[in-house]
Amino acid sequence: MTLDYTKLDGLVPAVIQDHESGRVLMVGFMNDEAFRKTVETGFATFYSRSRNKLWLKGESSGHRLVVKEISTDCDQDTVLVKVEAIGPGVCHEGYQSCFFRVLRNGEWNVSESQVYDPKEVYGGGSK
Amino acid sequence: MTLDYTKLDGLVPAVIQDHESGRVLMVGFMNDEAFRKTVETGFATFYSRSRNKLWLKGESSGHRLVVKEISTDCDQDTVLVKVEAIGPGVCHEGYQSCFFRVLRNGEWNVSESQVYDPKEVYGGGSK
Repeated sequence: MTLDYTKLDGLVPAVIQDHESGRVLMVGFMNDEAFRKTVETGFATFYSRSRNKLWLKGESSGHRLVVKEISTDCDQDTVLVKVEAIGPGVCHEGYQSCFFRVLRNGEWNVSESQVYDPKEVYGGGSK
Repeated sequence: MTLDYTKLDGLVPAVIQDHESGRVLMVGFMNDEAFRKTVETGFATFYSRSRNKLWLKGESSGHRLVVKEISTDCDQDTVLVKVEAIGPGVCHEGYQSCFFRVLRNGEWNVSESQVYDPKEVYGGGSK
């Protein structure tokens, strides 16, 4: 279950993909503890670089990510986690995916509608 | 077209996804120059952390990645690039995707077959 955490100061990027639609929902970072928690609990757990602590996705919103499959790349310095997303959206801004801005003619354009009201879920607070 | 490069010393992770199948093929890193090259040329270009220089994917193998769509996430510190992959596989180890190892019972298991012989393409050299 070894991963190479040396390239990013103890972290690996974790790509979160919907296991049915294939949509990429978000990218977070995991340290070894977060990765092990993810495997052991079956819920995606990250290391928050801004808060410097483990972060169980959905701990405040309830929008947890249920792990379906985990793979790693050739260099074993990145993980891909296929999940079932509980709740309408993964993004704390109210969208299904964090990747809701598409590049068109050199500008980032919001390409879809919110699926929930983040103020109701987060109360204006953190992720 | 602004991105936040401050969180990873001038880089952002770039998730490369097949635009038709939805398969995640690889994750690389881009600095601002690599990102602009990607947009301007239409071919995915990365910043190689090991070689400290720009890296046009496919420059030696011919396995280029033709950009179909680029999106960014809520924090604008990651990009998702949907591509058409030229050639049988993206991974320098001969697989369609770099994510060819799946976690099963605490072990990474190779879950698919090679689609080309990397020695014939790379001659035992670099990516």
